[in-house]
Amino acid sequence: MRKVAVIGVGMTKFGELWNSSLRSLTIEAGIKALNDAGIGGEEVDAIYTGCMSGDMFVKQGHIASLIADYGGMLPVPSTRVEAACASGGLALRQGFMAIASGMADIVVVGGVEKMTDSLGSQTTGYLALAADQEWEAFNGATFPSLYALMARRHMHEYGTTEEQLGLVAVKNHHNGSLNPNAHFQFDVSLEKVMNSSLVADPLRLFHCSPVSDGAACVILASEEKAKELSEDPVWIIGSGQASAAIGLYDREDICTIDSTVNAARAAYKMAGVTPKDIDFAEVHDCFTINEIISSEDLGFFKKGEGGKAVEEGLTSLDGEIPINPSGGLKAKGHPVGATGVAQAVEAVIQLRGKAGKRQVKDAEIGLTHNIGGSGGTAVIHIFSR
Amino acid sequence: MRKVAVIGVGMTKFGELWNSSLRSLTIEAGIKALNDAGIGGEEVDAIYTGCMSGDMFVKQGHIASLIADYGGMLPVPSTRVEAACASGGLALRQGFMAIASGMADIVVVGGVEKMTDSLGSQTTGYLALAADQEWEAFNGATFPSLYALMARRHMHEYGTTEEQLGLVAVKNHHNGSLNPNAHFQFDVSLEKVMNSSLVADPLRLFHCSPVSDGAACVILASEEKAKELSEDPVWIIGSGQASAAIGLYDREDICTIDSTVNAARAAYKMAGVTPKDIDFAEVHDCFTINEIISSEDLGFFKKGEGGKAVEEGLTSLDGEIPINPSGGLKAKGHPVGATGVAQAVEAVIQLRGKAGKRQVKDAEIGLTHNIGGSGGTAVIHIFSR
Repeated sequence: MRKVAVIGVGMTKFGELWNSSLRSLTIEAGIKALNDAGIGGEEVDAIYTGCMSGDMFVKQGHIASLIADYGGMLPVPSTRVEAACASGGLALRQGFMAIASGMADIVVVGGVEKMTDSLGSQTTGYLALAADQEWEAFNGATFPSLYALMARRHMHEYGTTEEQLGLVAVKNHHNGSLNPNAHFQFDVSLEKVMNSSLVADPLRLFHCSPVSDGAACVILASEEKAKELSEDPVWIIGSGQASAAIGLYDREDICTIDSTVNAARAAYKMAGVTPKDIDFAEVHDCFTINEIISSEDLGFFKKGEGGKAVEEGLTSLDGEIPINPSGGLKAKGHPVGATGVAQAVEAVIQLRGKAGKRQVKDAEIGLTHNIGGSGGTAVIHIFSR
Repeated sequence: MRKVAVIGVGMTKFGELWNSSLRSLTIEAGIKALNDAGIGGEEVDAIYTGCMSGDMFVKQGHIASLIADYGGMLPVPSTRVEAACASGGLALRQGFMAIASGMADIVVVGGVEKMTDSLGSQTTGYLALAADQEWEAFNGATFPSLYALMARRHMHEYGTTEEQLGLVAVKNHHNGSLNPNAHFQFDVSLEKVMNSSLVADPLRLFHCSPVSDGAACVILASEEKAKELSEDPVWIIGSGQASAAIGLYDREDICTIDSTVNAARAAYKMAGVTPKDIDFAEVHDCFTINEIISSEDLGFFKKGEGGKAVEEGLTSLDGEIPINPSGGLKAKGHPVGATGVAQAVEAVIQLRGKAGKRQVKDAEIGLTHNIGGSGGTAVIHIFSR
């Protein structure tokens, strides 16, 4: 299998971007990434884009074709990949395989979502299509309520507290305050989190990632091309993906996400590393409980100890294993299809040592963890300088 | 790059399948294909599924996870690929790359669409999301009207006649009458086609493929696994994909589809063959004009001579280059996400010599051609015994 490197990254600011469209966001991120790589579109062999639902959010399907066209990249093959909020991570994995297989030497991997063009009252319903329609969504279950069930059970089983859930938000908002591309660039106090309005007990507003617009892009290259074009390539040394029951109702234990466990095992094996070797991780904190559950499933902490780890500062920027230095989905924002690619952008910036005030010291190996739905899909990548 | 073979195929009947759901259709096709390959789900390394819009048609997103779950295949990585009506062909290409790269040895590639659960009045609008929303669909353009523009121009430029358009339907209905999985298993006369109701001038009802439910599946294997598991593997010797302007308004010539031309060039080059070497082709005849245009763009006939070729019987089952022996989208049916995979199913059945009354004599090399939208995406595969 051929080695694959990231040689360029770019992203738009995340937020409520009323003056941008799905197509303009994608192209902005793509141009930034191509410029960062120092190459032109004519050198690109393939485009992969993660997008959860242009169909629902902006009534635009077939976005792969649209992006190749409006990006001025015709006739480059262009493919959209979807697995709900894991769409970006899966697009990255397809781009990786395109190069690993020898079918391509340079690949653009993008992720995008334009969410704020639909009414707020529709958005949660559109997102709920990623749950099991017949057994969950049709009956009124939405993602805040599904993750609330997971949170309540984790609290019951392991004594995880509302304060610990809140401290994930406090940490990620602090990191986001240091990220000029974040949707929320401000600190929040634990008191503010604890007093924010209840969304789905025990989850409050500040436990939930926002509805955001945004796009992110990375440029992948084969070993030969990376050495020719880049002075500081970042290597993708592990890629793991796994599926789990789409619905909560069909899981043995809702305090763990099996797809994360299985994808992590595959990614660690491929990379030849263990959780102890990871210097920082971008973890899928769509709700604060998911960062706690996932930090356990990824092997950073024992099951049930993720809440305590946040409380002890182990996941802070200067902690043992900094989690979500970018601000995470919670503060950086969560344009769903873009998230998995934006995690890769942060991993590369950190490994280049260019993250400014949110730089993780001596970062050599980073991990990204992207979840679809309530965990039906998980995809994990491991990056190395 | 590692060689890739098809070792099993399966499909549901195509049609208005009121008693089947998206998940049941997918699983039916998958089980048939696994049985055909003589393997169990535990041997599968990855699943790729083409689906245009579960979101719109049945309000179910994240179908990759659903399929792995309801197919009893957890924790196998499962990925949905979308490029409108080319979704199935692109899923096949991703499955091909997963094996070519060495990331997988056995891959399930499925395609599915459950279209008849939405109201007929909505369906054309949902399909139109594959056009450019801002410049085409929003202004009322639907696919019958876009292909009607292409037909009218082809008639103007090259003298293609309404009778020639109609003869594509007559031929494909005849082939469909020999296919037990076809949506329409009956012959139609040219008179019946010419007198059917006008949909978008010059296209009449019998120039249009139907709205169908259905699923199709192929099992791919590495060379080593194929030789171990199969007595009659069919090899994928070429894969080509290209993009073109998503909207008709931005093309130099609407009598040709650039993405087909470019994807064909790539596929022929990879396979080391020319159009003359192709023994039969499954061509994307969503509207009869598209079979004529594509038979030219694929290099079987000179530009402008596709209509005459149908009239002369060159594309009939016993002609020089039989096109759509399965009945094509026109008669076999067009469950949009399933179509690209169903084309591969037909190619394999033909190359195994198991197509019964619709068998193409001495078939050794076959081609499948799958289009998204009005040609924004094209993907072509070449198969060999």
